[in-house]
Amino acid sequence: MYKNNTTRYVDQHLLTAIPTFSPDARAREVVSHLTDKKHNFESITYIYILEAKKLVGVISVKEILRAHAETKLSELMTKKLVAVHPHATAERAAITAIQHGIKAVPVTDRQGNFLGIVGTDTILRTLHHEHVEDLLKIGGIQIVEQKHILEMLGDKVSHLLRIRTPWLILGLGGGFIATLVASFFEHAIAQEIALAFFIPVIVYMSDAVGTQTQTLFIRALAVRKISLPRYLLKELAVDIALGLLLGIIIAGFGFVWGKGGVTVAAIVGIAMAINVVIAGAVAILISWILYYYKRDPAVGAGPFATVVQDILSLIVYFSVASLLL
Amino acid sequence: MYKNNTTRYVDQHLLTAIPTFSPDARAREVVSHLTDKKHNFESITYIYILEAKKLVGVISVKEILRAHAETKLSELMTKKLVAVHPHATAERAAITAIQHGIKAVPVTDRQGNFLGIVGTDTILRTLHHEHVEDLLKIGGIQIVEQKHILEMLGDKVSHLLRIRTPWLILGLGGGFIATLVASFFEHAIAQEIALAFFIPVIVYMSDAVGTQTQTLFIRALAVRKISLPRYLLKELAVDIALGLLLGIIIAGFGFVWGKGGVTVAAIVGIAMAINVVIAGAVAILISWILYYYKRDPAVGAGPFATVVQDILSLIVYFSVASLLL
Repeated sequence: MYKNNTTRYVDQHLLTAIPTFSPDARAREVVSHLTDKKHNFESITYIYILEAKKLVGVISVKEILRAHAETKLSELMTKKLVAVHPHATAERAAITAIQHGIKAVPVTDRQGNFLGIVGTDTILRTLHHEHVEDLLKIGGIQIVEQKHILEMLGDKVSHLLRIRTPWLILGLGGGFIATLVASFFEHAIAQEIALAFFIPVIVYMSDAVGTQTQTLFIRALAVRKISLPRYLLKELAVDIALGLLLGIIIAGFGFVWGKGGVTVAAIVGIAMAINVVIAGAVAILISWILYYYKRDPAVGAGPFATVVQDILSLIVYFSVASLLL
Repeated sequence: MYKNNTTRYVDQHLLTAIPTFSPDARAREVVSHLTDKKHNFESITYIYILEAKKLVGVISVKEILRAHAETKLSELMTKKLVAVHPHATAERAAITAIQHGIKAVPVTDRQGNFLGIVGTDTILRTLHHEHVEDLLKIGGIQIVEQKHILEMLGDKVSHLLRIRTPWLILGLGGGFIATLVASFFEHAIAQEIALAFFIPVIVYMSDAVGTQTQTLFIRALAVRKISLPRYLLKELAVDIALGLLLGIIIAGFGFVWGKGGVTVAAIVGIAMAINVVIAGAVAILISWILYYYKRDPAVGAGPFATVVQDILSLIVYFSVASLLL
């Protein structure tokens, strides 16, 4: 629900015909209000309690119906209030609902004035939409029309080709660059052919670490506010540990296997360790830049990031090889 | 929500304290029933109309409150009924709610008897849970405890290592196999070193096509019943078209670039075309087998499938090379 999508923000989904009462109102007044035919509420899941337009409490309609007729709303209402701003994303509202176990999320302005709610329908649709959209972006599938995102799955061959070709062509372009990078180090491969055997595992592990990092990062971005330096620092700590572990294992394998001898084993191990750390950092930076420019960071977990990781991992691998050979 | 998860099925989420009425009841009876303190309904979003225990209609509580007191429910109720079986997955119920724009899904047995509903809370939680779970599985991140799936994102370095290491080690194992495959064709690489330069793009494109295929397939499996032979046939048609397109482009690049000459250009083009078709077929078969054995097919879009595609693509590539050199 990003770019070119006017339905991204909460204010596009605001339901304003919502039952609101003062804290002094009584349960029976609410019931008679709700059953009064002249109102036409858009949602009656919750009753919102306002004081001078400010949201001060919430009661579910279920609780109202169960309450004694003369009970004051101030005694029934919960004061643990959750709200989102009108410029929050619909996804933020949906996550808020999930985190607090509520079915509709009130929207308030900076002064705490009640503006309306994001209803259950919007929350359900947003959750589903974000799920499908994340998968398609990560899978490298072009999202042609937002409105068709849910129905596009049973489509014709021609349509499938149209949504699948763009990212594949881009990937192929990235693959050409990887080919040029490898050929640039032709002398190293010619000198030690065993280097070629490790290309797939070098490239694969960078992709794997990058994808993991981005998966965790885009979920974290969706769920809460993030301090980039702190997140990056923690990620680097994880990646250094992973890099050492994976580098040692693969160097050990190279050594035991024997092709290329100690030198190739050392090259592969060192390159692996460096690549894992770079992959984590690059993964976060790509997603962060997308997020910062209000693009969907999930795109960063897709083919574009993979291609970038492929190219970087080859440059590091062959540079280490050139130094140690 | 697969294996080892008792909350996968609808019958684990059934709300049974739900307002039900006969078609002859009147709107005012419902209102007085709902406001009667002795009931303790778990959900009052919808009123369900039963005839001899069978579900025959639904009315939203909003419509009931708006209706004239003496209107019969049979005049208010919608007869366009949607229901799921008690052994349907919670995900199926959630998708049903999305597809029909409803907030709770009735559950009926084979005879059409009303058993209860899957409530809004369950639907919201399921949609969110499936989203996070799909991302983690595709991203190659171990899901340690189901209940922590939503909170695991802000975790300690030690915990992050624990959830990230298993799939990386598996990937590294697959990478070793890829290394062995490549070394098995050492003579081909020694004879024509340009073959090494194309390893990254060959491996990458198989992964990219496989990931696309699985992304579309696992969503299709979630949303509707699928005939495997028909789906596979359509996928093959798409993959043959993609394979020809990508094979011709890369062969053209190889030819223009000149390294390795016409032979390498032909090898790369032919291997690419074959690999794309194999990648699509393998992607679907892996996901289908997982689905058939009641595992989550999303696992099939993760690192395991990528590693399998890597290895297969190298075997095809070097086999074609060995034949044409």
